[in-house]
Amino acid sequence: MSSRPAYDALATHHARIYNLEHLQAMASWDSMTFMAPSAAPARGAAQAELNSIIHRLQNDPSIDDLIAQAQAEPLDESQAANLEAMRRQQRIARAIPDQLASQRELLVAAASEAWHGARKANDWDNFATALKPLVALVRQEADHLGQALGLSRYDALLERWEPGLRGARVADLFGDVSLWLPELVNQTIERQRSWAFIEPQGPFDAGQQKQVCERVMAALGFDFSAGRLDTSAHPFSGGVPEDVRLTTRFSEANALPSLLATVHETGHALYQQNLPREWLGQPLAGPHSAALHEGQALTYERQLAPTPAFVAVLARELSASFGPQPAFVPNNIAQLIRRVRRGKIRVEADELTYPAHVILRVEIEQKLIAGEIEVDDIPAIWDARMAALLQLDTKGDFANGPLQDIHWSRGMFGYFPAYLLGAMVAAQLFEHFTAESNDFEARAQAGDFASLGDWLREKVWHQGGRYTLEDLVVRATGRPLSAESLRAHLTRRYLYEEPGHGRH
Amino acid sequence: MSSRPAYDALATHHARIYNLEHLQAMASWDSMTFMAPSAAPARGAAQAELNSIIHRLQNDPSIDDLIAQAQAEPLDESQAANLEAMRRQQRIARAIPDQLASQRELLVAAASEAWHGARKANDWDNFATALKPLVALVRQEADHLGQALGLSRYDALLERWEPGLRGARVADLFGDVSLWLPELVNQTIERQRSWAFIEPQGPFDAGQQKQVCERVMAALGFDFSAGRLDTSAHPFSGGVPEDVRLTTRFSEANALPSLLATVHETGHALYQQNLPREWLGQPLAGPHSAALHEGQALTYERQLAPTPAFVAVLARELSASFGPQPAFVPNNIAQLIRRVRRGKIRVEADELTYPAHVILRVEIEQKLIAGEIEVDDIPAIWDARMAALLQLDTKGDFANGPLQDIHWSRGMFGYFPAYLLGAMVAAQLFEHFTAESNDFEARAQAGDFASLGDWLREKVWHQGGRYTLEDLVVRATGRPLSAESLRAHLTRRYLYEEPGHGRH
Repeated sequence: MSSRPAYDALATHHARIYNLEHLQAMASWDSMTFMAPSAAPARGAAQAELNSIIHRLQNDPSIDDLIAQAQAEPLDESQAANLEAMRRQQRIARAIPDQLASQRELLVAAASEAWHGARKANDWDNFATALKPLVALVRQEADHLGQALGLSRYDALLERWEPGLRGARVADLFGDVSLWLPELVNQTIERQRSWAFIEPQGPFDAGQQKQVCERVMAALGFDFSAGRLDTSAHPFSGGVPEDVRLTTRFSEANALPSLLATVHETGHALYQQNLPREWLGQPLAGPHSAALHEGQALTYERQLAPTPAFVAVLARELSASFGPQPAFVPNNIAQLIRRVRRGKIRVEADELTYPAHVILRVEIEQKLIAGEIEVDDIPAIWDARMAALLQLDTKGDFANGPLQDIHWSRGMFGYFPAYLLGAMVAAQLFEHFTAESNDFEARAQAGDFASLGDWLREKVWHQGGRYTLEDLVVRATGRPLSAESLRAHLTRRYLYEEPGHGRH
Repeated sequence: MSSRPAYDALATHHARIYNLEHLQAMASWDSMTFMAPSAAPARGAAQAELNSIIHRLQNDPSIDDLIAQAQAEPLDESQAANLEAMRRQQRIARAIPDQLASQRELLVAAASEAWHGARKANDWDNFATALKPLVALVRQEADHLGQALGLSRYDALLERWEPGLRGARVADLFGDVSLWLPELVNQTIERQRSWAFIEPQGPFDAGQQKQVCERVMAALGFDFSAGRLDTSAHPFSGGVPEDVRLTTRFSEANALPSLLATVHETGHALYQQNLPREWLGQPLAGPHSAALHEGQALTYERQLAPTPAFVAVLARELSASFGPQPAFVPNNIAQLIRRVRRGKIRVEADELTYPAHVILRVEIEQKLIAGEIEVDDIPAIWDARMAALLQLDTKGDFANGPLQDIHWSRGMFGYFPAYLLGAMVAAQLFEHFTAESNDFEARAQAGDFASLGDWLREKVWHQGGRYTLEDLVVRATGRPLSAESLRAHLTRRYLYEEPGHGRH
């Protein structure tokens, strides 16, 4: 007889949910890679069926009692942390009434449909009509969640993606960036005027690009006995930790973007593959912070990939597969990766202008959820902030403005901060790692990047969901999370470094 | 308010099961095609979790009441047939006590493990030790099932694969074949002594073989907007009717076997893709008869593929992809497809000797389940019957004898008849179709095989699970199922036809 029957029952309960989420992840991956188009309705019904079973399990009221009993049982430190993570999940799951959840489905369906049409037709008003009731509902959800967690509305939504993080902290961090970013963009664009960018000359065979991507993934430590690479319309890292399904997409005109997208997804994938194996299936295995996840991807894509050592690998791989050409000279690849251009589209933005897009979204969604502004106020704020941050005139171009992203039409508020927090996390982790490591640069020049993965595995990946984002950053780097490392990194890279020659 | 609330509730219940089976099918397909090897334990746990949810739904005791209520509701003819199919499934699902079902899992696990080792070590005794308790359990299952259905033991097991078919009828049909088959094999081998078989000269690139297979599938009517072809260790047709996942395997040494295996699986796939769309998710959609399913595969593989018109397609495709060679002359391909050799292994057997392997298994399993023989009696019967049917000495070679097939180690009794019944069904359907069709041969010579699919779609595929195997054969061909068409077909093909020149 176990001395912790309630805890054991909870662990079994979570293992069951994990098993079902495994099938959900595979069905979702398949729907974006191999599914026959005509199977979409059947797949949708199947996934909805499983979702509702998972939802019922997560909302099982008997879990409350088990958690209360387990708190009196003799648990070791990890078990106690696992129980606390269970309790947190349960409070979030139980906070929102079923009736709101089913109302959400209808409003999301309507807003999603409106979004697709409005984006094509550049029709903001039509989307706004569908978005308003959804925002009203999300505010209600946030009220329920906030009451259960003792948080304000936006903080309650943020808690689902970033446990422990508050909106005011995000606003502080982002406010800092918005002060120095515009001038840094100006100076960079000025500096790059004299650069000659040589475009790769295709066509580049997709099958060969895939092989290059797979070799680069292997060089970064991706375990092909526990995952694979396929193609999809939008790159993602999915599947399950035991079998990570990473995807990319190929353009025959240019082999570089797919390679960098693959490096990004490989960062996500390495985190997944290296979550604490012995805790898989339990909340303690995590990951819980979207920003930390994004931070792993950006450590590889934005910190490691542009370094001379890694650019040399890219140059060698591209030349070997497609024959040498002027574009594949390391200095040119390094310049292409660093090219800064102001543009209206977030997902096409370079490293330096990208934060502006995120800051803008987060400013708006914070005020919108708090009720300080309404849906109709969005376009004017958008235009004003895009002008201030990136000197862009976005007036009247809704399709490439607030209509460009899918998130809000799905009722997804509170996720956007992760995109910029992730860049901060990546800069701070990589700065600390390279300062602490005495031989990384030498080994990297020989094509050996393993010590980065070794360090991240210990400091981040194996920690799973044990710590909040901010606690983990302090433990890993000795300093609280801030925008300082990101600022130092961007300033160095865009104002002082010679692309082909590393740091000065 | 519906006038048939109980029926509607049952339909919803079956649609839910269908949705979950969709995910089960995709997870199973993935595990045999793309799954990373190290994910096997996680996948196994996930599939078991879903299995148990499906099992609980299928055994829901409230279904009994709903069925009783629905029988008093105003149903149209199709709804009544659907309800009857539900009732049949429910009686089978509820007949076996849960305790036996969990005991089965343990005994199957032990027998499967013993089978793998015993087969490698040619160790019959070790397997027999593990098989005995499993056979005892299956007899108990058959008793429960038989009591619920009013059937004898073997008939009860057979009912799960072939509704309405009885063991005595199978014994009659197979007994007939066992009388004329040995002499036909003798005469054929004698006749083929003078044939010069030219082996294809590889290597044949797997990627190119796949393209040939896909073109042949398309020519047969496979809908690539509702399915795809991949590779796996053993060819199968899986997935769901909305998205059929067909697989084959490639040998670089010979491109012909994968092509014929693909034609076989395409027969299964066409049936799946053309089940009555409007009934998918309901028992009426079927298919319920394993023999009828196998019959569709064999109609394409054994009836259509060896005809001169189709051999011409194979010759053209192979020559176009791999360059002309003596082996790819139509007459030689036709001969290779018809080559008859006595061998010990069922899955490697040609069309003509194959029935002997099935007859042998079915004779033994019928007596074994009835309790007329015991596990220890199997090797002696095996040797005697293999000598009588195929003049083979199998004494002491258990690995290539009773240990060669996996079925019994999984507790799967009652399935084997489908392999030979399918050949009978295929011969009878194809004979009737070609007699009825006035332009099939002319159109086939122009590479157009669509009228076969059109006929099968109407007579078989669209009927789903509406009729039993025997009723459907009578409706489609005007005659009861018998071995006569198969005998006529085999006699004509192996004793009279010139391979390259079609019928006489």
